[in-house]
Formats: sequence, C-alpha cells, structure tokens
Amino acid sequence: MAQYKAPLRDLQFVRDEMLNATAFFENTELWSEATSELAEAINTECAKFSEETLLPLNAIGDTQGCTWNDGDVTTPAGFKEAFAQYVEGGWPSMEGSPDYGGQNLPKTLTLPVNEFIGTANWSWSMYPGLSQGAIHTITDHGTEDQKQVYLTKLIEGAWTGTMCLTEPHCGSDLGLLRTKAEPQADGSYAITGTKIFISSGEHDMSGNIVHIVLARLPDAPAGTKGISLFIVPKFLPNDSGEASQRNDLSCGSLEEKMGIHGNATCVMNFDGAKGFLIGPENRGLNCMFTFMNTARIGTAIQGLAHTEFSYQNSLAYAEERLQMRSMSGPKNPNGNADPIIIHPDVRRMLLTQKAFAEGGRMLITYIAFISDQMHLAEGEEKAHLDDRLGLLTPIAKAFMTEVGFESANLGMQIFGGHGFIKEWGLEQNVRDCRISMLYEGTTGIQSLDLLGRKILATQGKPLTSFMTEINEFCLAHQDQEAVKPYIETLKAKVKEWGEITFEIGGKALNNPEEINAACVDYLMYSGYVCYAYFWAKAVAIASDNLSASDNDKDFYEAKIYTAQYFYERLLPRTESLKTTMLSGVENVLNEKVNPFV
Amino acid sequence: MAQYKAPLRDLQFVRDEMLNATAFFENTELWSEATSELAEAINTECAKFSEETLLPLNAIGDTQGCTWNDGDVTTPAGFKEAFAQYVEGGWPSMEGSPDYGGQNLPKTLTLPVNEFIGTANWSWSMYPGLSQGAIHTITDHGTEDQKQVYLTKLIEGAWTGTMCLTEPHCGSDLGLLRTKAEPQADGSYAITGTKIFISSGEHDMSGNIVHIVLARLPDAPAGTKGISLFIVPKFLPNDSGEASQRNDLSCGSLEEKMGIHGNATCVMNFDGAKGFLIGPENRGLNCMFTFMNTARIGTAIQGLAHTEFSYQNSLAYAEERLQMRSMSGPKNPNGNADPIIIHPDVRRMLLTQKAFAEGGRMLITYIAFISDQMHLAEGEEKAHLDDRLGLLTPIAKAFMTEVGFESANLGMQIFGGHGFIKEWGLEQNVRDCRISMLYEGTTGIQSLDLLGRKILATQGKPLTSFMTEINEFCLAHQDQEAVKPYIETLKAKVKEWGEITFEIGGKALNNPEEINAACVDYLMYSGYVCYAYFWAKAVAIASDNLSASDNDKDFYEAKIYTAQYFYERLLPRTESLKTTMLSGVENVLNEKVNPFV
Repeated sequence: MAQYKAPLRDLQFVRDEMLNATAFFENTELWSEATSELAEAINTECAKFSEETLLPLNAIGDTQGCTWNDGDVTTPAGFKEAFAQYVEGGWPSMEGSPDYGGQNLPKTLTLPVNEFIGTANWSWSMYPGLSQGAIHTITDHGTEDQKQVYLTKLIEGAWTGTMCLTEPHCGSDLGLLRTKAEPQADGSYAITGTKIFISSGEHDMSGNIVHIVLARLPDAPAGTKGISLFIVPKFLPNDSGEASQRNDLSCGSLEEKMGIHGNATCVMNFDGAKGFLIGPENRGLNCMFTFMNTARIGTAIQGLAHTEFSYQNSLAYAEERLQMRSMSGPKNPNGNADPIIIHPDVRRMLLTQKAFAEGGRMLITYIAFISDQMHLAEGEEKAHLDDRLGLLTPIAKAFMTEVGFESANLGMQIFGGHGFIKEWGLEQNVRDCRISMLYEGTTGIQSLDLLGRKILATQGKPLTSFMTEINEFCLAHQDQEAVKPYIETLKAKVKEWGEITFEIGGKALNNPEEINAACVDYLMYSGYVCYAYFWAKAVAIASDNLSASDNDKDFYEAKIYTAQYFYERLLPRTESLKTTMLSGVENVLNEKVNPFV
Repeated sequence: MAQYKAPLRDLQFVRDEMLNATAFFENTELWSEATSELAEAINTECAKFSEETLLPLNAIGDTQGCTWNDGDVTTPAGFKEAFAQYVEGGWPSMEGSPDYGGQNLPKTLTLPVNEFIGTANWSWSMYPGLSQGAIHTITDHGTEDQKQVYLTKLIEGAWTGTMCLTEPHCGSDLGLLRTKAEPQADGSYAITGTKIFISSGEHDMSGNIVHIVLARLPDAPAGTKGISLFIVPKFLPNDSGEASQRNDLSCGSLEEKMGIHGNATCVMNFDGAKGFLIGPENRGLNCMFTFMNTARIGTAIQGLAHTEFSYQNSLAYAEERLQMRSMSGPKNPNGNADPIIIHPDVRRMLLTQKAFAEGGRMLITYIAFISDQMHLAEGEEKAHLDDRLGLLTPIAKAFMTEVGFESANLGMQIFGGHGFIKEWGLEQNVRDCRISMLYEGTTGIQSLDLLGRKILATQGKPLTSFMTEINEFCLAHQDQEAVKPYIETLKAKVKEWGEITFEIGGKALNNPEEINAACVDYLMYSGYVCYAYFWAKAVAIASDNLSASDNDKDFYEAKIYTAQYFYERLLPRTESLKTTMLSGVENVLNEKVNPFV
C-alpha cells in the first residue's frame, strides 16, 4: 500500500526559518492573523485529511476512473464524499475575499494545502484546483454582479470551475481558436464550439460547474487579439443566485488517457450556451492569463507532489527490501541480505528525489511569498515583484515537472520489477506525473516564454534583479564557514547564467530561431541555478541553527548533506546544458539538409 | 492510428556498408549462403508481417490484455493467429541448428527480425522472444536427448519457452532463491516453489511451454553456487516427443502492470513438478547466463524498438500538425499556422530520437556481428570476442533502454496534450518501454556488471581492446576531411574514458563502494562514447559514398547531419556525467549523517 506523511517540519523550515514569512505577515494589516501557529494548524489539519481521506482514494481513482453516461459523469467511489468533507472543512474558502465568504489567507499559507492534497491524490485535487483558477479570474476581472453570484458559490465550494481553452486544432497556438460568441439581446452571448481536454469539465461532486471559456466575437480580429473571455455556467443562476435552468452545453465524451484517471478530462460541446463576458472584449487572453498563471503554479506543485510521493514510498521500500550485500561488508549480518538502502546507487536515487522535493518546496514557497508581497505592494515595487513572478513561473512549471517525472521514475526504479506492478502505486505515480510536462503549456512553451518573452524581450531586467538578490545573499554569507564552498560555486554559476543569456541574446539578434533552439536547455539550466540558490540558503540557516543548539540536529545535518549532494551530483548537469544550448541552431535547422529522410 | 515502416535502408547501411557483414559471411563455410540478397529478402518479408499483421494488434493487446481463468491464460484477440502465421512462415527456426530443424542463420541476419516485430508489437514479440533464450540455453547446455525432444519443438515453434528466475523475495540477488529440486528415482527432479514475473509463463498460443527454471538441490551450498538449472515442461513429452501428461505446475495469477499488457506476466507455482537437470549440478546460474545474455540483448533491442516507434510516429505528427509560426517568418503561408516540424525545439526532440535509434541500430548490429564472428573463432580470438561481447552487453542493455525511455517520452512530448491520450499509441509506447530498464537486470545491475565485473575485475582488458579498435579507426580516418572534426572529439573522449576508469579504479582500491556510487553515470558515459564511435564510422562511410556518386545523396547527407547533431547535442552529456561520477561516494554514503531523517 502506498504511504504518505505530509512534510510538516520541512514546510515550517521553509516558511518560517528561510523566508520568515509569518513574521512578515504579522506586521501587516491585512494578514496580521497569519501566524506561525495558524499555519501549523492548517497544515496539521490538512495533513490529516490528505493522509486519511485522500490517499486511500488514490489507487481507487486510478482503477475505477470516471464514467460517462449520456453526458453525465460519475467520479470514482469516495471522490464525491471526500469533496463534501473538503467543503465542510472550509478548505475552498481559504483564498477568496471576505466580501464573498473567503478567508483571504496569504498564498504562502494556502500553497501547502495544494501540495498535501495533491501528493495524496493528484486526480482528486484537480477538482478544487481548477476552482481556484476560476476564483482568481473572476476576482481580478469579473463585475460586481458576477462576483456576487459566482465567487460566492465557488468560494463556498458549492460550485466548481473549469478553464476552457483548447480546441481540437489548437493547443499551444490559441490564436487559431474558433469557438464563437454571438451577442444576444439580453446582453449575454451565445457560445458555440467544441473544447477538448477540459479537466473537471463534468462531474457529480458539485451543484454547478462554472466554465471560463475563450471564444471569438463575430467582428473580432484574427489571432490572439480577437479572443474574449466568458463565464458559461452548466446551470444558469436564477434571481436568487442558485443553479437553475440547464445551459446548452454538455460533456460529449471523456478522454482515455495514460493517467490521472480519477479526473474527468472532457470534450465539452457548447451549443449556443448562454455566456457572460468577463473583462473587456477581445482582451480575453490577457484575462485568461490570471487563470493560466494559477494553473502553472498548480502544475509546478504537481511536479513537487509526485516527487514527494515517489521519495517517501521508495525510501520506505529501500529500508525494508533485502537484496545483495554491501560492497564494504554485511550491514545486516543477521538477515540473509542487506536492505537495499545501503547501496550507494540506491542512495543516489533517493537523494536525487529528496534534493528535488525539498528544492521544489523552497522555490514554490518563495514564489507564493513573492506573490503575497506583491499583493501588498504598489507602484514600482509591485512591478518589480510581478517581474520576479513572471520570471520564476515558467521555471517552476517546467523544471519542477521535468525533475518530478525524473523523480517518479527513480522511485519506481528503486522497486525494480515490483515498481512496474500496480500494487505499489509507483507506476501510477509515473503515469499521473507525465501529463504535468504537457498541460498548461508544455516544457517547450514555458521555455520560450522564459527565454523569449521574460528575458530577452525585457533586456533581461527581471533576471538581473533576481541575480542581484542572489549575489547579495552570497556577499552576506561569504564568511560563514559552512556556506563558503557553496557560495563560491553559486557565484560562478550566476555569473555564467548571465554570460550565457548574453551570448544567446546576441545570437538571436542575427537569427531569432536561436531562441527556440536553446530554450529548453536554458530553462533547465536556470532551474538548477535557482535550486542552487535555495540550497545555499538552506545551508546558511541549518548551519546557524546547528551552532546555536542541538535542537533538530538530525534535520539540519540532513539538510546540509542534501545540499552537498545537490551541488556535487545535480548542479553539474549545467555543464552539459551550457555546451548544448550554445551549440547553435545549425545542428537542428539547416536549410541545406533534410535530416528526416 | 500508429504507423510503422521497418527501416530497411538503414539496416542495409549498417550491415553491408558499415560492417561488411554479408561479404564476410559469404567467405565462410558455415554461412556462405547468408548473402546480402538473403538478408534483404528476410527483412522485406519480416517488414511486411510486422507492419501488416503485428502493428494493428499492438493497441488491441494493450486494451484487452491477457485474461486468467482457473490457470488458463487467454491472449488478446489476434495474438494466437499471428503466432500461427509466424510459425507458418518458418520464423522460429531462423537461428537453431539444422540438426533440430533450424536454419542456422547468423545473428546479424536474425536480429532485424527481432527489431521489426518488437517495434510493431513489443508485447507479442516477447512470446517468440523468450523461446529464443530457451533455444540458446538448451543448445549450449542440454543433453542430446533434451535437444531431440525440446529443441526440435522450440525451433519448429510448436512449443514456446520461458525463463524462471525471480521469486517474491529475490530479484537481483539470485543467491537467495528457495525453489527446491528433489531428486527422484527415475533421474528426474521434483520442483517446488513459486516464481514471479514470468513473461509468457502461460498462454494459448502454443502446444506446450518449456520452463527453464532455477532451483536448489537438497544438499546445495547456500548462495549462487548452489543453484541448478532445470527444464520443466507444462506438458511432459511422451515417448514420441509429443506433449502428453500435464505437469504439476500452474499459473497462479497474472500481474497487473503499467504496460506490456499483451504479454502474460505470470506467477508460476511449481508443486512437485517433474523437471530435468540441464547442465551440471550447482552450476545452474552459469548455464542460465546463456539465457540472460540473450534476454539482455533482446531488451536492448526493446530500447531501440520503442525509440524507432516513437521517432516515426512523432515525425509524422510533426509534419502534419499546424501550430504557431516560425520565428523566422511563415513557412506555410497558405495555412493558418506552420507545421510544428519547423520549430527548432521540435526538431531537437526528433533528432534526439533519430540519433538514438540509428546509433542503437549500429551498436546492436555490431554486437550481433561480433557474436557471429565468435561462433566461428577459436582459442584466443574467441576469448577476445567473448570479452568484447561481455563488455558491450550491459552497455547495450542499460544505455539503449534508458535512451529508449527518453526517446519514447520525447515522441510523446511532440504530441503535446494529445500524446497523453490513448488514441495515438505514444503513451502506450512510454508504458511498454518503462519495463525495459527494470527487467533482465536493472540499469544499476548492468552498471555494476560493467564497471565492477567486466572492467575493474579484469584490469580493464576488454575496455582497452575496444579502445584500441576505436583508436585504430581514428588513425585510419584522421585525414578524411569530413570525418576530421569527429575524430578529434572521439579521440579525446576515448582518452578521457580511460582516465576516468583509471581514477575510479584507484578510488575503489581504498573503498569498493566507490564502484557502486559511480557505476550508473559511468555506464551512461560509456554508452555515449560507444555511439560516438559508430556515428564517426557512419560519417566516414557516408562521406565516401557522397564523393563517389549521387546515389542516395539525401540518405547520406542526413546521416552526416545526424552525426553532427549527436556530437554537438548529445555527446556533451558526458561532461556532466564525468563530474558527477568522479564526485565520490561521500556525498551518497557517509556514516556520520543519515540524510533520510
């Protein structure tokens, strides 16, 4: 049976020892109640729900999947009841505004909830997960009326949300989308078209489903500048805001897919469904970016979730499974073999997962905290933090899912042939994880966003500012004995990151295809350097705490050791990435040769 | 729908232009009939069978899987009929000795058959695939009587074979195995025990199943030196050699697994089943190595098969799918977007697959040819070739499956979200491929075999001899203009390979755990250098042929271009691997710290 214990101690370390987040919140007007105690209470309660209620449903969700019957979708046994329990516990309301029933907690405190429920059962977590994106989108772009009707219900958890972008012929390239929105006499729009890959598009867990849909007005310009955004509910709200008349939309079928079977991936047919414009006409894609950014952070957490699941389960197996003797003599002389955790290669696979899990937790919590600070900031400071978010979002989304998939596979590898068998949950973890590099923008799309839009198009401004933060950290800690070796490497890597960026930027002036040819290696390189920054910070804190007292000695020693592992065994991957990304576009695109004959 | 065209031209290139294999065979007494024409005839016929009969059954096999009913196993619809067709075509007899009905073809000619059928339908190909191992094992270690009875039937394809090693508590560590073999008055043995993960252990495709089983005699020493090997048929042969009385063994259940659903992965219960000793008592593991080496080469081919399948299908999709415009201006101005194959990052993913597919084909065909030469050789020359095989087998098995899995995932990535959907066959390809890094010895086990047993335990003898061959090639071609840049890199890499080996060997003298800590990175490094050798050879031949005539100009230009891609984008991965494998055991195993608290 799969196991999972929420990493409470590690979250406390990141939130309060590394970021000093709750100390910061306590000094703000808005979040003075977001104390460390509150954070711990939330995490403890959510851990319980995740471990006890959601984890046992994870394999069931995979085995049963969702079933379609004439447009209705039934979720796996227990999913609906777990959702009722989640609503009962007030979890959907954590983030929304108090004006609509929300608790308005900072993201730094709500993100761990997403991690815990996602690690225990990713497919289930996508039902409330999509609602969060709908909440953010309506909060940022909706009218007061829309907020009164839809936000209230979404925040309560009575209704759930979806994001309807993709059509059969357009995924990455939304400019091609065809779904029509025709203005009606009553100010609403008739939405007609087919959307595919709609996660949680139809199900039996909530009283209504609020579809956030991209569509084109009749006179809209071609391409991405002619797309508008609409709220299209499954049931139209009546005057008292309750779900009432059925709208003209339906789930045509469910996709059969590799994993996340517990989540309904729907083909949604809109047949003149009544929709309501959200945000300005033809600016729908801009409004949808609110949703997409939420979804990207959510997917980054998915990478972390599968890494943590894989790590915990393969660690437990490695401690139990007896096979072969240690090369330096028996470690379990009374058994007929040693536990496989004593083999260096098994430890390598475990430490890789651990370094990626804890590194991911540091990055994503840092991002959440930046987002919270941004919420309070104004003017230049707000713009600066927004830039930082824009820089780190594609890195988190793509890097955390790529190393998440690597981790999921390493965990399975530790099980040997047993990892391939359904019983242990490791193969499901690999299958469920695989979608994370595809949806919400593939790794390639995130990489283009990072290198093209976020860095080169801004002359590297957000990158320079982030590098300044890292260099300031290096300067502040360069005399701290335990951190020194890491600081030196980190400084050199940051310098190299800048040089590489400059070099690719220069090449791109001559041939913009250089960006496309280098971008994925560049993103992966950037991810390793980001993690190196956080791992160095972790060493600085851990070594300080070790000098101060004997409390949690094992925890801090393991932190420092894992940092060493990251610097010596994972960060060096940047060496090859540097070489390959600078090797130029000619070896992939050369008009004189067709390599694919 | 998935597609597949067997790579006939590329095989011809490797077999006759690179290895000059059929020219060599024509000058031997044993294989004078193994001409290029015969090879082409076999390949063309097998291509037809694979493309037309096996490919359409691939998705069916995945969807239906095998079903168990009171010990009987039913294979997916069409599998049995395809096997009958395969037997009818005489395919099972390609390799066996003419004394028992075999055609005795060299492996260089039979290996492509394994590749083609495996690429079209890996799960199906495992039924005849396991028989090949049984044929080799009985050929090498069986008595004349055993050959008359079992070989004849296996070579005819009337019966199939299995390999029964694993037990619930022992996989990599066969020394722990418990299955008992008790001598009986009639000279046979009563075999009792449970074997798991037995591929093709029970099915409905053949008249009998010949299990090759590892078990312990009552007085056997503990560990691997007390294991003997037995033939244990499902039905005992009667005096005329026909399947007759049912033996006391049965399939207890089928495993539910991530992929290869079309193949029956069985729990086999032996309840005092009648078995016949094969080879000497207590030397069973040595005899089983014949089977295991066949299976390892077979699994290396699996890596190639999934790479080729992924490449062909993602190439076709990339040529059709319209999405986004080229960064350097529209390439398909009449369409509303460009085909995604024009994007450098998509080309990078395609070229990676292509370089791994063609590189794998060169390595595996080279191995087959070495094996054939060994069959003809004697004395020192035979030992020398055996060493070469021993060196390259773990590299081929682990490297080709690791890059096979990478390739399968890249192919899926090119499909974006559509890759996650069952319809296209790419997600099945990923799931089917995943087992290849686990069974027949995990990547870790292969790596230990390579670095520990094959290299360090022999003071590097087989490695030195292989390096000499590479250096001789470099010397012979260093003035050939087109090859020059590759030669320089290759020479440097080979030198570095030797230095790294020497350095790890030195460290291992102080602490043998260094081998375990470095081995996987070392194996992957070795794989890249091997492929670099073959890619340089490919350039030498292609550039010669380009100078000679305009025939197949596109083919040769694409070869050279793919070599350039390999050298500039894939071989540099050795840089990071070098750093990490030399980083030492301390960062994974340090008695003072427990990193897993």
